[in-house]
Amino acid sequence: MKKINLYEENGFSEKSMKNFLVHDSPYFKILNFNFKAGQELPIHSHDIDGQLSITVLEGEGEFLGADGATMPARQGDVLVSDIAEPHGIRAGTDLRVLVTIAPPI
Amino acid sequence: MKKINLYEENGFSEKSMKNFLVHDSPYFKILNFNFKAGQELPIHSHDIDGQLSITVLEGEGEFLGADGATMPARQGDVLVSDIAEPHGIRAGTDLRVLVTIAPPI
Repeated sequence: MKKINLYEENGFSEKSMKNFLVHDSPYFKILNFNFKAGQELPIHSHDIDGQLSITVLEGEGEFLGADGATMPARQGDVLVSDIAEPHGIRAGTDLRVLVTIAPPI
Repeated sequence: MKKINLYEENGFSEKSMKNFLVHDSPYFKILNFNFKAGQELPIHSHDIDGQLSITVLEGEGEFLGADGATMPARQGDVLVSDIAEPHGIRAGTDLRVLVTIAPPI
């Protein structure tokens, strides 16, 4: 059993999104990404089995999907996507998200 | 790809914690538990492989561990535990948590 606090462990950078590895095991990988307004995790996909969730902890922006599709992203949203499906996120305000990938990439 | 908003989908109840199934797949199960102050997920474990994470989205309380151990639980905390290890949580204020279990129980 281990506990970490995302607010203590990860901040923001004007240069690019800040990536923090929370946990990695044979079962899942957990990452925290913090974005300043305008920063993004560009749309991407990997041709492997599995799914991921993106939970918006704070702030707002847009989830990015295939063919230029977007969906509003706001606090309390949970997006679930196949790893093989194009996904990304763009920050409209300072934005904290938690990403869980199973099985881990 | 699907998106749900926890604040829209799940509220609080004076009777007991409110449980909302966000997602269930062969890869992971995602649940949202909302607790009024004083409510709890009693300490428990299952003798199977796998791990779970408990992320505190809002509010505070205590994580519960083996032999009466407790750890403060506050916004931004992520607890990771083996499913086979005793774990639980008690709310000190109204408390929203997200639980991810991999592989799903």
